[in-house]
Amino acid sequence: MTPKTTKVTIWNEWRHEKHKPEVAKLYPKGIHGAIADHLSTVPGLSIRTGVLDEPQHGLQLEVVNDTDVMLWWGHLHHGEVADEVVERVHQRVLDGMGLIVLHSAHFSKIFKRLMGTTCDLKWRVDTDEREILWVTRPGHQIVEGIDDHFILDHEEMYGEYFDIPEPQTTFLISSFSGGEVFRSGCTWTRGAGRIVYFRPGHETFPTYYDKNVLRIIENAVRWATPTRPPRRVEFGKRERGWLDGK
Amino acid sequence: MTPKTTKVTIWNEWRHEKHKPEVAKLYPKGIHGAIADHLSTVPGLSIRTGVLDEPQHGLQLEVVNDTDVMLWWGHLHHGEVADEVVERVHQRVLDGMGLIVLHSAHFSKIFKRLMGTTCDLKWRVDTDEREILWVTRPGHQIVEGIDDHFILDHEEMYGEYFDIPEPQTTFLISSFSGGEVFRSGCTWTRGAGRIVYFRPGHETFPTYYDKNVLRIIENAVRWATPTRPPRRVEFGKRERGWLDGK
Amino acid sequence: MTPKTTKVTIWNEWRHEKHKPEVAKLYPKGIHGAIADHLSTVPGLSIRTGVLDEPQHGLQLEVVNDTDVMLWWGHLHHGEVADEVVERVHQRVLDGMGLIVLHSAHFSKIFKRLMGTTCDLKWRVDTDEREILWVTRPGHQIVEGIDDHFILDHEEMYGEYFDIPEPQTTFLISSFSGGEVFRSGCTWTRGAGRIVYFRPGHETFPTYYDKNVLRIIENAVRWATPTRPPRRVEFGKRERGWLDGK
Amino acid sequence: MTPKTTKVTIWNEWRHEKHKPEVAKLYPKGIHGAIADHLSTVPGLSIRTGVLDEPQHGLQLEVVNDTDVMLWWGHLHHGEVADEVVERVHQRVLDGMGLIVLHSAHFSKIFKRLMGTTCDLKWRVDTDEREILWVTRPGHQIVEGIDDHFILDHEEMYGEYFDIPEPQTTFLISSFSGGEVFRSGCTWTRGAGRIVYFRPGHETFPTYYDKNVLRIIENAVRWATPTRPPRRVEFGKRERGWLDGK
Repeated sequence: MTPKTTKVTIWNEWRHEKHKPEVAKLYPKGIHGAIADHLSTVPGLSIRTGVLDEPQHGLQLEVVNDTDVMLWWGHLHHGEVADEVVERVHQRVLDGMGLIVLHSAHFSKIFKRLMGTTCDLKWRVDTDEREILWVTRPGHQIVEGIDDHFILDHEEMYGEYFDIPEPQTTFLISSFSGGEVFRSGCTWTRGAGRIVYFRPGHETFPTYYDKNVLRIIENAVRWATPTRPPRRVEFGKRERGWLDGK
Repeated sequence: MTPKTTKVTIWNEWRHEKHKPEVAKLYPKGIHGAIADHLSTVPGLSIRTGVLDEPQHGLQLEVVNDTDVMLWWGHLHHGEVADEVVERVHQRVLDGMGLIVLHSAHFSKIFKRLMGTTCDLKWRVDTDEREILWVTRPGHQIVEGIDDHFILDHEEMYGEYFDIPEPQTTFLISSFSGGEVFRSGCTWTRGAGRIVYFRPGHETFPTYYDKNVLRIIENAVRWATPTRPPRRVEFGKRERGWLDGK
Repeated sequence: MTPKTTKVTIWNEWRHEKHKPEVAKLYPKGIHGAIADHLSTVPGLSIRTGVLDEPQHGLQLEVVNDTDVMLWWGHLHHGEVADEVVERVHQRVLDGMGLIVLHSAHFSKIFKRLMGTTCDLKWRVDTDEREILWVTRPGHQIVEGIDDHFILDHEEMYGEYFDIPEPQTTFLISSFSGGEVFRSGCTWTRGAGRIVYFRPGHETFPTYYDKNVLRIIENAVRWATPTRPPRRVEFGKRERGWLDGK
Repeated sequence: MTPKTTKVTIWNEWRHEKHKPEVAKLYPKGIHGAIADHLSTVPGLSIRTGVLDEPQHGLQLEVVNDTDVMLWWGHLHHGEVADEVVERVHQRVLDGMGLIVLHSAHFSKIFKRLMGTTCDLKWRVDTDEREILWVTRPGHQIVEGIDDHFILDHEEMYGEYFDIPEPQTTFLISSFSGGEVFRSGCTWTRGAGRIVYFRPGHETFPTYYDKNVLRIIENAVRWATPTRPPRRVEFGKRERGWLDGK
C-alpha cells in the first residue's frame, strides 16, 4: 500500500500584500506563499496556489476537480470572485473535497454558501490585542501536538455572536484582551466534504509564521483529506425492487 | 401576561391542485387550505396563506416581516420563486422566524439556501408504498402526543442518502415497503431561526388529513415560534472598552 | 385549555450557608432559598426545595416522580448523596424531567452519570475576577431577554478544557479577567429529558441575585419543562406483525 | 516517519460459542477470533483478544493502557464484568482510546457508562429477517469503500427508539423486513476518545464473515485510532498569571 499524495490548493486574494507595504514586508510571497512554504515541508502533500487576479482566479474546473483539500484566504474583495467559480468549488466540497476557511474568509462567498448564514461577527484591530486560544476538544486530529492553549501576542479581535450554524465540533475558543470570546476552530460536513474554520490570520501580523498556527493548518489538511478519490453521490428515481437487482 | 398570538403564513405552490383533477379532488382548497383548516382550530394561532401566482408570491416584505412561523410546500416550480423573495425569507429566518419545510419543498430555493447542500434524495411514487414513521427523540415537543410510531398506508417513497447537513435533532425516521429509509423529521437552527423538515405530503395522497401528520405540524409550529418578536443581531466594529461603556 | 403548572424542585447541598458566615450573610435562606424567592414570582411554577441533610435528601420517590424540572447546586459533599437517590433522579430525567445543573454541581454524581465523562475543569477563586458571558445562540429560549452579553463583576473562574460531551447547543461562552474561557451555558438531551448546565454561582458572591442570572434560570426552567407528563418509553421484544396488530 | 502500529484489543464474552452448538459451528474460534482473523490481515494493526473468563477478563491495567482501539462484544453476561475493569476501560477512553461497541454490547456496562442512558431498544430474532443498511454520511472514513447501502440476508431485528444521546454522526440507518428502522452506525466523543456503535452481529448468523461488515469494522478501527499516544488531560487549580509563566 503506497501512501497517497494529498493535493492541496491554497487560495489567496493577494491584494493587501501588493498594495500595503507593511503587509508586503511581512508576507513577501503573499499569505499563500507563507502557508505553501510550510506545507511543502510536510510529507505526502502536493501544493498548488491560486489567486484572485489569475484567469478564473486560478480555479479552473480541472484544478478544482484535481484538488483534495483547498485553503481559502480573502478579505476585501470577496465580491470579485465569480459566482461560477464559487459553484464549482461548492460542488467539489459536496463531492468530498476538504475546505479550510481562514480568518477573514468567514465572509467569502463559498463559506456563506456552505453555511447558509451571514457568517457575520464583531471585530477590532488594535495594536495590543492578545489572543489566547483554548483547546476544547482534546484528542481531535486538528489539535494534535497542541498544548491545552496557545497565545498570539498580536491579533485582530473577532467577537461573538459569530453567525454560523452550531458547529459539529468546536476545537478552539479564543479570548481577547478586550474581554471578547470567539469560536476560533470549528468543523462541519456538507455532502461528503469536511469543512474547517480557523480564525487567526490578520494580514498585518506574522500569524502565519507561528508554529502552533502552522501545526493546526497542517493537521487540518490531514483531517479534511477525503478518504478516497471524491466521488459524486447518486440520487433520483428508483423502481421498486432495484435493491434485489443490484 | 396575556398569551401572545403566533402569526403563521402557509405558503403553497398551488399548481397541482389546479391542473390535476385527482389532486383537486383531494385538496379542493389546495394543500395550504387543508393545513390552514386544521391550524385555524388551534388556539393562539393567526393564519395567513400565500401562493406562487400572487404578486410577489404573496410574500411582500410586510407579510414576511409580520410572520412568526412560515410553512412551505412546493414541488415542480421552485425555479419560479423570485430570488428577491427568497432572500427576504432567508433574512427573516436568521432574525428568528420559524420555517417548516414540507415534503417536496426539500428542493425549494429557501431550504437549499439555508442548508448549503443539494438536498437531493432517492424517490418513487407507487400505488402500494406504505410508510412507517418511527419516533427517534421521545420527549421532543414536535412529537408530543405521538406514539412510538405511526403509519401512512400510501405515500411517496423518499430514500437516503438525503443530502442535508447532520441534523441537530432527528425526531422521525421512516421505512418504506421497498426497504428504503429516510430521516423524515429533522431540525436545525440558522441565526436565531428554528427550521423543521417534515417529509410526508405527496399531493396525490390524503396525507394532510392524517391526524398524526396534522398533530406534528401543529407541534412544529409551536416549537418553531420565536420566543420574542424576532430581532436582528448586531455585528461590526467595536472599540476597546465598549463593554465598560454599556 | 388551562395553562399547566410546572412543578419545580430546587435542590441544594446547604452546607456552606450553615458553616461559613460570609456565605450565610449573602444567602440567609440558602442558595435554594434565593432561587426559590425569584421563581416563586414566576406565574405557572410551583416551587419545592430539597437539601442534603433531609431524609433521602428530600428526594423521596414520590417527590422526584412529581417533579417536572429539578435544579441542582452542590459543591463539597457530592459523595454524600446516596446512589439510590441518584439513580432515581437519573431515571426521572430519562422519563422526561428537565434538569438544570448549577455551577459546582458540574461534579455532582447525577451530572457525571448523565454525561459519561469526568466533568472536570480548571478553576480559581480570586477577589477581582470579572466574568463576561457572551450569547452564542441568539433566539434560544434560554437567552430570551438577554443582551448580546452580560457581566458579573466578581465570580469564580472556571476554565477549559471542560470535560463534557460536545453540547447540542452552546448558548453562553465566558471570558475571565485571567484570560480563560468557558462554555458556560450548554444543553443536552438524555432519553426524553432536557439538561442544562449553567456555570455562574459561587457561594461567596451574590450571583443568585443578578437579574440576568435569574432570568436565565427562569428561562431554563421553561425550556426544560416536559411537553406532557413524563412517560416511560417502552422497549423489548416485538413479534413480527405487531405493527399491524396495533 | 515510520508508520505507527495501532494496538487493537478485541474483547468478547465468549460464552455462546462454548454452550450453543450452532454458534460454535459458525464461530469455532469465537466471534473475537473471526474478527481477529480479518484484522490480522490489515497492515499496521497489532491484534490482541480478551474474554470474560480470563483473570480480570483479560483486561489487566497494563493491557488496557497499552490499547489504542478496543472492540467489545457481549450479550447475556454483562453483569459479570467487574466494575473495576469497566472503570479502567472508561478512563482509558477518556484518555483517547477508541472504543467500537458491537451489536448486543449496546447493553454493556462500558457503553451505558459512556452514554449516560439505558441504551435500550426493541428486538426480535426471526428466521427470515432481512436487514438493509443505508449510508447516511457518505465520505465518512467508516463507510469508505461501501456502496450507498448493503444487505444482510439474515439478522436479528433491533428497532427504535434506541435510547442513546443524539449521535454526533449517524453513518448508517437500517430497515428490517418487519418494517422497523434503527440507527445502526453512530459516533460520539467522550474526553479524548472516539466511540463507534455498529449494530449487526447476532451470534446465530454469519455476520462477521460479511465483507461489508468487516470493511466497516476495519475502517472504524482506523477512524477511532488516537492521533498520538493517549495522554491524560490536566485539570485543577490555576493561579492568576499562570499563562504568562508557561
